[in-house]
Amino acid sequence: MTSDAFAARLRDVADAIEQRLDALLPHGDLISDAMRHGVLGGGKRLRGFLVVETAALFGVSEVTALNTAAAVECLHAYSLVHDDLPCMDDDDLRRGRPTVHRKWDEATGVLAGDALQTIAFEILARPDTHSNAQARIGLVMALAKASGQAGMVGGQAMDIAAETAGSPLNLDEISLLQSLKTGALIRFSCEAGAILGGNADARPHLAAYADALGLAFQIRDDLLDVEGDEDAAGKALNKDAAAGKATFVSLLGIEQARQKAADLIDTAIVNLSRQSLSSPMLEQAARFALTRQT
Amino acid sequence: MTSDAFAARLRDVADAIEQRLDALLPHGDLISDAMRHGVLGGGKRLRGFLVVETAALFGVSEVTALNTAAAVECLHAYSLVHDDLPCMDDDDLRRGRPTVHRKWDEATGVLAGDALQTIAFEILARPDTHSNAQARIGLVMALAKASGQAGMVGGQAMDIAAETAGSPLNLDEISLLQSLKTGALIRFSCEAGAILGGNADARPHLAAYADALGLAFQIRDDLLDVEGDEDAAGKALNKDAAAGKATFVSLLGIEQARQKAADLIDTAIVNLSRQSLSSPMLEQAARFALTRQT
Repeated sequence: MTSDAFAARLRDVADAIEQRLDALLPHGDLISDAMRHGVLGGGKRLRGFLVVETAALFGVSEVTALNTAAAVECLHAYSLVHDDLPCMDDDDLRRGRPTVHRKWDEATGVLAGDALQTIAFEILARPDTHSNAQARIGLVMALAKASGQAGMVGGQAMDIAAETAGSPLNLDEISLLQSLKTGALIRFSCEAGAILGGNADARPHLAAYADALGLAFQIRDDLLDVEGDEDAAGKALNKDAAAGKATFVSLLGIEQARQKAADLIDTAIVNLSRQSLSSPMLEQAARFALTRQT
Repeated sequence: MTSDAFAARLRDVADAIEQRLDALLPHGDLISDAMRHGVLGGGKRLRGFLVVETAALFGVSEVTALNTAAAVECLHAYSLVHDDLPCMDDDDLRRGRPTVHRKWDEATGVLAGDALQTIAFEILARPDTHSNAQARIGLVMALAKASGQAGMVGGQAMDIAAETAGSPLNLDEISLLQSLKTGALIRFSCEAGAILGGNADARPHLAAYADALGLAFQIRDDLLDVEGDEDAAGKALNKDAAAGKATFVSLLGIEQARQKAADLIDTAIVNLSRQSLSSPMLEQAARFALTRQT
């Protein structure tokens, strides 16, 4: 599989997820418009892609995989809409467009985020997502763990606390923060395939792949924050350095951060193939996390 | 059943729900503390009570009923924590104590509310809530409908839009707003018994009871806002009149509002007993909605 073929597949899956989102989201009122602004029209859909490709390992049907991918992207978008609020990271731009609270107002940002979290669970619970209620409730349980106080919310709270305290985190603390704030949903996205396929044995191996991928993804984010192109990113860069925040790059230096990310990706790929979960797409997804420019 | 016996039962159920919440909520960090502040130590637990009493109609086990009641109270608390934020209703007091964003800060209010919504779904999905995955996924689906853009979030958005526009709503609009903002979760609480009991036939009748009860409950709220005791309520009163907001009382007058609430409760009780869903507790709960002082 060439990286061009991978890029084409990533785009195709992103288009298919976009269409599912468009069909699943409500429309015709302010909150629906704000939800759509928050989730449609942007992003690489890497989380959704991981759902689709891990689901493919177990022969899961397309509508099941795409609904689950759409749910993950709604949950991800909810976290971005709330993290962008003035009382949190106070961001004006996201994917090159005004953030929800800048386009409308703060109340709309809070409520649209709230409704995006709700619809993520609603999509997972829909009978047309999977005929098996056990699989659907397994997804709900796993997404709740990724999303709540012991997952993304906990990570965001750690991040804000560190910024307020003004004492930069060390490497262990940054790793924990990242595993909650970014890693938890990437882990869910990879476990989703095993949950949908009813394959409990594969789940820990996909989780291990996801944890290495998630950490490498975050290190690449920190590298792009220092080296990246603001226009291509569609958001403000260099924010962490300007705020004096510790990142993998500030703690390790550029070269060592690059090496750590590369090592993580090797581990992820070797672990996966050793478990007979070999997938060219998941291999390329791991390499992409390392080389992406946005 | 005397109203004293009802009051004692309401207190006992509230105590049991409080114990379940204490056991189910996380602890040991800022977000956990804020979640606990938002949901523990207060409230009549009327929504949880409705879950417990409708579940009792179908012989549902106590742990199933109490977990579901705890989930409803977490969802209710999430909506209060977010509605209290400065960008929404900007309230300093709730149940006689500082609101979450006043005790901590806005970011903590947003995140604790987010995590309370998440944990509501997590509790419903837990295997120990019900042995039947179909019942659990049915609860998740119904709670998502009550909570999201077509439910509570939609109602709160209507409320804010009306306030911003400065043109008071008419009776039909107020009724719609209330059916979303308050009614949807009361309806879920009553339907929960039928979902847990696997009794699809009873569900619409419990929903009809809930809709009448919910509307009467809101009318009573509007009456208490005009006539109530601020110390007993534990929150600021007369806010709606001061803000020039339309309420059932401003539109109907005190006497007609009282009469409408009383008629609704009669309809709710008659409808219930006609369907052989007779429950002295649910009858008294309806009467309580009409006569409560806080």
